[in-house]
Amino acid sequence: MPEVTSPATPLEPGTSADPSPTPGDYGVGARFTLLPLTDRFVEVITDALAVDRPAGLEVVTDDVSTFVRGTESDVVGYLTAVIARAARTGVHTVAQVLLSRGCPGEVACEVADGVAFAPERLAPIPATGLRAAAHWSLYPLHDGPDGDHMSAIYAAIDGARERGTLTRSEHFATRLDGDLADVLTTIGDAWLTVGRSVRHVATHATISLNSPTTSSPAGDR
Amino acid sequence: MPEVTSPATPLEPGTSADPSPTPGDYGVGARFTLLPLTDRFVEVITDALAVDRPAGLEVVTDDVSTFVRGTESDVVGYLTAVIARAARTGVHTVAQVLLSRGCPGEVACEVADGVAFAPERLAPIPATGLRAAAHWSLYPLHDGPDGDHMSAIYAAIDGARERGTLTRSEHFATRLDGDLADVLTTIGDAWLTVGRSVRHVATHATISLNSPTTSSPAGDR
Repeated sequence: MPEVTSPATPLEPGTSADPSPTPGDYGVGARFTLLPLTDRFVEVITDALAVDRPAGLEVVTDDVSTFVRGTESDVVGYLTAVIARAARTGVHTVAQVLLSRGCPGEVACEVADGVAFAPERLAPIPATGLRAAAHWSLYPLHDGPDGDHMSAIYAAIDGARERGTLTRSEHFATRLDGDLADVLTTIGDAWLTVGRSVRHVATHATISLNSPTTSSPAGDR
Repeated sequence: MPEVTSPATPLEPGTSADPSPTPGDYGVGARFTLLPLTDRFVEVITDALAVDRPAGLEVVTDDVSTFVRGTESDVVGYLTAVIARAARTGVHTVAQVLLSRGCPGEVACEVADGVAFAPERLAPIPATGLRAAAHWSLYPLHDGPDGDHMSAIYAAIDGARERGTLTRSEHFATRLDGDLADVLTTIGDAWLTVGRSVRHVATHATISLNSPTTSSPAGDR
């Protein structure tokens, strides 16, 4: 059951910690589902997934979601480009995004248990001009006896506030609003911020664009 | 930031553990987004959300998702009824579902830290006749020094296998296939199974119905 992290995950004896593992070795990647609410959804999804992608980025789509593996910046950049392409049709589009790092349960993970690694920052993503709203959840898993994931989480919240995307706390989620690139950068940066002190980090977001429902996030900021 | 659990969450001094807290006190609930991929999405969503609901179930919809609070059986039963109603239109429909328990970050949670509580089982949900495929992730958070969440997780996996919904492990998720009621019962039962030993448990699933994309899960079972 690859989604479950455990401190008891067996590792091969003698596995050494690599301070800079490859994304594949470290289980860095995403799973996302693009949902344009239109009769033409096949056309919109197919066109969006065909955006240019960086060399080396692995993308595998099945009937439920799309798996993406590569560097953090390539993964988040590709997600932004795909969602933006779909939303530019003007169709109400929702993306469900899961970012994962540190091999929560990945069978072939070769990184020693307890080792946390994350690049400092994502590569900047240009603004898309598309307004997005998100319900976002962040799960630091297994920080060990010396873990201090709260300081990283506070830094992640500060990051969202500084970026201007933090709207408010909701039940089970934090609401973000802003340009799609800023929303995804907030989520990706938090994933990396927590990932510097916690090895296993998963984060989920439901991101909505072109919704016909009016919201008034500004008043709550 | 209500989505983040921490062992360091401050609790009021003297808060006593209640062996059978109310769902509200214990932070039991769901957040879900219903996504019918049709030009008529407003009509399909509005009609589906209007299914009969049990007395006492709290349902609040905004522009991104719908918050549900109540007993575990009422929450999962309502989700099944709503998603089934949308899928019976024949439209390709995807639901993003988050179940949460034990107040991960809920500001008003009154349950003492470390106390785990879960009813034994969900009330049975009648088969819907609708085939569903899901990518499912389960996050036990904060099991404490004496925690043994792995035994509960193995029980959850066994539960899915016994129910016949377990298809295979994927990157970052487990694939489930079966009647919508069985898929949601698998997810809900696992949430409760882990919840008997871990206080904070969140689980996410992307559930797809009426997909035009062919899959062949049976061969992998």
